[in-house]
Amino acid sequence: MQNYKLTICYDGTRYRGWQKQGNTDNTIQAKLEALLSRLLGQPVEVNGSGRTDAGVHARRQVCSFRGNTDLNEKELLKQIRSFLPEDIGAVSLECADPRFHARLQAVGKTYLYRIWNSSEPNVFDRRYIWQIPEKLDEDAMKRGAQLLSGTHDFSSFQANKHFKKSAVRTIYGFEFKHAGGNDQELQIYVTGDGFLYNMVRILVGTLVEIGRGERRPEEIPDLLKAENREAAGMTAPAKGLTLWDVYYDTKTEDNKHEKTVVA
Amino acid sequence: MQNYKLTICYDGTRYRGWQKQGNTDNTIQAKLEALLSRLLGQPVEVNGSGRTDAGVHARRQVCSFRGNTDLNEKELLKQIRSFLPEDIGAVSLECADPRFHARLQAVGKTYLYRIWNSSEPNVFDRRYIWQIPEKLDEDAMKRGAQLLSGTHDFSSFQANKHFKKSAVRTIYGFEFKHAGGNDQELQIYVTGDGFLYNMVRILVGTLVEIGRGERRPEEIPDLLKAENREAAGMTAPAKGLTLWDVYYDTKTEDNKHEKTVVA
Repeated sequence: MQNYKLTICYDGTRYRGWQKQGNTDNTIQAKLEALLSRLLGQPVEVNGSGRTDAGVHARRQVCSFRGNTDLNEKELLKQIRSFLPEDIGAVSLECADPRFHARLQAVGKTYLYRIWNSSEPNVFDRRYIWQIPEKLDEDAMKRGAQLLSGTHDFSSFQANKHFKKSAVRTIYGFEFKHAGGNDQELQIYVTGDGFLYNMVRILVGTLVEIGRGERRPEEIPDLLKAENREAAGMTAPAKGLTLWDVYYDTKTEDNKHEKTVVA
Repeated sequence: MQNYKLTICYDGTRYRGWQKQGNTDNTIQAKLEALLSRLLGQPVEVNGSGRTDAGVHARRQVCSFRGNTDLNEKELLKQIRSFLPEDIGAVSLECADPRFHARLQAVGKTYLYRIWNSSEPNVFDRRYIWQIPEKLDEDAMKRGAQLLSGTHDFSSFQANKHFKKSAVRTIYGFEFKHAGGNDQELQIYVTGDGFLYNMVRILVGTLVEIGRGERRPEEIPDLLKAENREAAGMTAPAKGLTLWDVYYDTKTEDNKHEKTVVA
């Protein structure tokens, strides 16, 4: 069977997250599997690079699946696009090496968290932002972000602790931006080798508490040392979060002799 | 009674346009009048700077209304915000000169039309863009826009001709931009002293036909001379259009001794 790498984007507002669940077909994975199984006339299993929570969006989510079809990638991509709902988009499709697996081979990810730091309304982006009316102290937030960067045990920033699994992750860095020179929109990009359940939302919630003056950035090292969810800040709302990009080791891609990209 | 200037924004997707209609309360004007009448305990009439069609958005729409209340502008703005639906926002509220009228005193407007010129999906802005997969010839479109600028009889660019009303308008200029250096999004801003019914959408539809090579920019002068809707191009979809800003003569504002702005 052919192995495929499919890159998608989605507005997560009306979905119960990425992962299929027993009691609902209203997840991104379930939608994709139903569509691909119908298109290919065989049961298709789709593996995503990772889960996203209910209400979280993706600019780029990568997934892999296997199947047989007479359609070439361009034709298959066109078919997929024509059957996807308007809030899920297929960015590109390529034939992948048989060993490619979207989750197992992902080496890093970037998430974007969007804060609308203003009391003025933002009706157009309302589904993608967290509105915080009171002015945040960005310098303090940046100092906190600096202390969170690097390799740490992030147990304090994890919603459901798995005692047998390592919570050590590396954050390569945070980037703070203002969209289009817009003072009101604060964008926080965070890149790392992997993220625990709810980790980005707890990181952002904690940074916002620093931005509000409720915590000091200097508390971060103790907070990490605590290895206790209670020590960290709140979980920022899902709707402000977007999976921005997923990275793969290009060395493993050298083997893809048949690799073709259709966009 | 106090006269107010209220600036609002809205996602027009689920509304039947600005203007109230006999058979539906699902218009922006009807929503505002119902809300303000309830808040002020008296029938309130709201005058907008102009109508927007069903599905058209506004980043800034200006309206005026009269009423009596014990609330100051800040308190009233807060009340308005708390009762507006999530797709209508109150940007600012100020006490206005008794003679201020949002439509009669508007001296110009800017509209933005957003084209997503790509076959890739754009799920996040899907309600605010017109997707055109085939690559448009922007240089030709700019030459067409240049020939449309200035003072002309725009009868050819008007949906419903009113034989007794002048169709002469002045377009101060078009501006073509790519959002955030993004090749895929083409933004067309057009500024003029006023626009006829459907005029911006027909201007954009005609420019897109030029961009597709179906018309030549050099045809524009004849097209204007025809003074006939049949001569111009298609009407671009409503959802790509946003009322960007409304301008007032600042000289008339000099008289606003009590002017205060709350945002």
